[in-house]
Amino acid sequence: MSRRGIGRPRSRASASGLSTEEDILLASATLFCEVGYGSTSTYAIAEAAGTSQATMYHYFAGKHSILLALLLRTVQPSTVVATALLGRDEPAEVRLWALCAFDVRLLASGEQNTGSLYLLPELSDERFAQFHAERQRLADVYAALVAGVAGPEQDRGEQDSGEQDGTDDSWLVFGLVESVILRRRTGGCEPDAATRIADAALRVVGVAEERIAAVRSEAEELLRALEDVTKM
Amino acid sequence: MSRRGIGRPRSRASASGLSTEEDILLASATLFCEVGYGSTSTYAIAEAAGTSQATMYHYFAGKHSILLALLLRTVQPSTVVATALLGRDEPAEVRLWALCAFDVRLLASGEQNTGSLYLLPELSDERFAQFHAERQRLADVYAALVAGVAGPEQDRGEQDSGEQDGTDDSWLVFGLVESVILRRRTGGCEPDAATRIADAALRVVGVAEERIAAVRSEAEELLRALEDVTKM
Repeated sequence: MSRRGIGRPRSRASASGLSTEEDILLASATLFCEVGYGSTSTYAIAEAAGTSQATMYHYFAGKHSILLALLLRTVQPSTVVATALLGRDEPAEVRLWALCAFDVRLLASGEQNTGSLYLLPELSDERFAQFHAERQRLADVYAALVAGVAGPEQDRGEQDSGEQDGTDDSWLVFGLVESVILRRRTGGCEPDAATRIADAALRVVGVAEERIAAVRSEAEELLRALEDVTKM
Repeated sequence: MSRRGIGRPRSRASASGLSTEEDILLASATLFCEVGYGSTSTYAIAEAAGTSQATMYHYFAGKHSILLALLLRTVQPSTVVATALLGRDEPAEVRLWALCAFDVRLLASGEQNTGSLYLLPELSDERFAQFHAERQRLADVYAALVAGVAGPEQDRGEQDSGEQDGTDDSWLVFGLVESVILRRRTGGCEPDAATRIADAALRVVGVAEERIAAVRSEAEELLRALEDVTKM
């Protein structure tokens, strides 16, 4: 969690010690989050990144393509972990806890609250389709894991559940996880936000209270076992 | 919930049937949410509202003051209900359910997802202090009600709760409620989102599953009893 901004392997070093591409992404994240996407010019990005507009266009087709790259970094690491979790044998609630905690940590990481860009009106443009597809893929894994939790041994005691099933609650869990974006915007995150949100997610899907502490430690162990894919 | 945009008593009718002030607010909400706050000019607002910039400045000191008015409308009705709920005798979980459901309905109402403006970088400006104070007041009532729920009869079975108390969980509930803003942005809200989120909030704070259906119906009754203050 100590990575600066939006860490990634560097190809070559600039004055900042980052690659030019990283310099551009970091400068853009700062400007988009602190000044606003609409109010940021490519000129301002190039200047803040310590490069020229020509060089910037060598790496990115335009402002939208920088935004897309930033958005994908808020989702793709979680999708990779989610996919790995789908192939594991641990109980669904353990895998769900692990996904929630990883996802919250990702959204809470970095100097800038890049997730706050999710609400930009510009994201309706089809040039961001890849981001929406990736986020949907992640939501689908949440749905699969939540459906797995809501197995026969679970008794939610609902009186009007009707057509409700486990899958149905996954948007609540997804919302709880992503609420960390709003939380960062006002007052910042609790240091243990990931753990607390993952615990709360289990309560939402009806995991018995006395089981949560055990799930939590199994899930942290699972995340350590998946170190290859969880390295941010 | 059928109000158009950001309903309020009208002082005088324009071509749209709304007052000039409402025309300006509605046009601004549409432009801010669909084009972006930073990219919207006062000229564009006046034009979309069918009025002149001079008239616009008669009602609002500038774009920021329109934004502030829009933001306050996403919180103030809930603060009014929250304050009324604090003075009631119903069990805390009933009042908490009522507040969650009312708040979600408010955030889900209107043609535009005005809550999506919460993440604008411009909100760091002190001119929006009133909005932040109002939202904090609302958060404080959530905290008070959650603390009331976490009474002696509640057994969360936490093994490492340490300094945790009921109050501590209120940011999770607040986050769950406001997650409806992110939900609207992608795919839209379930018609029963308010009920589902309020139920989930009770689970998060540890209300026993078998109690939830009863709380729900008591809370809906309470909201009807508070009709004077719950009319949106």
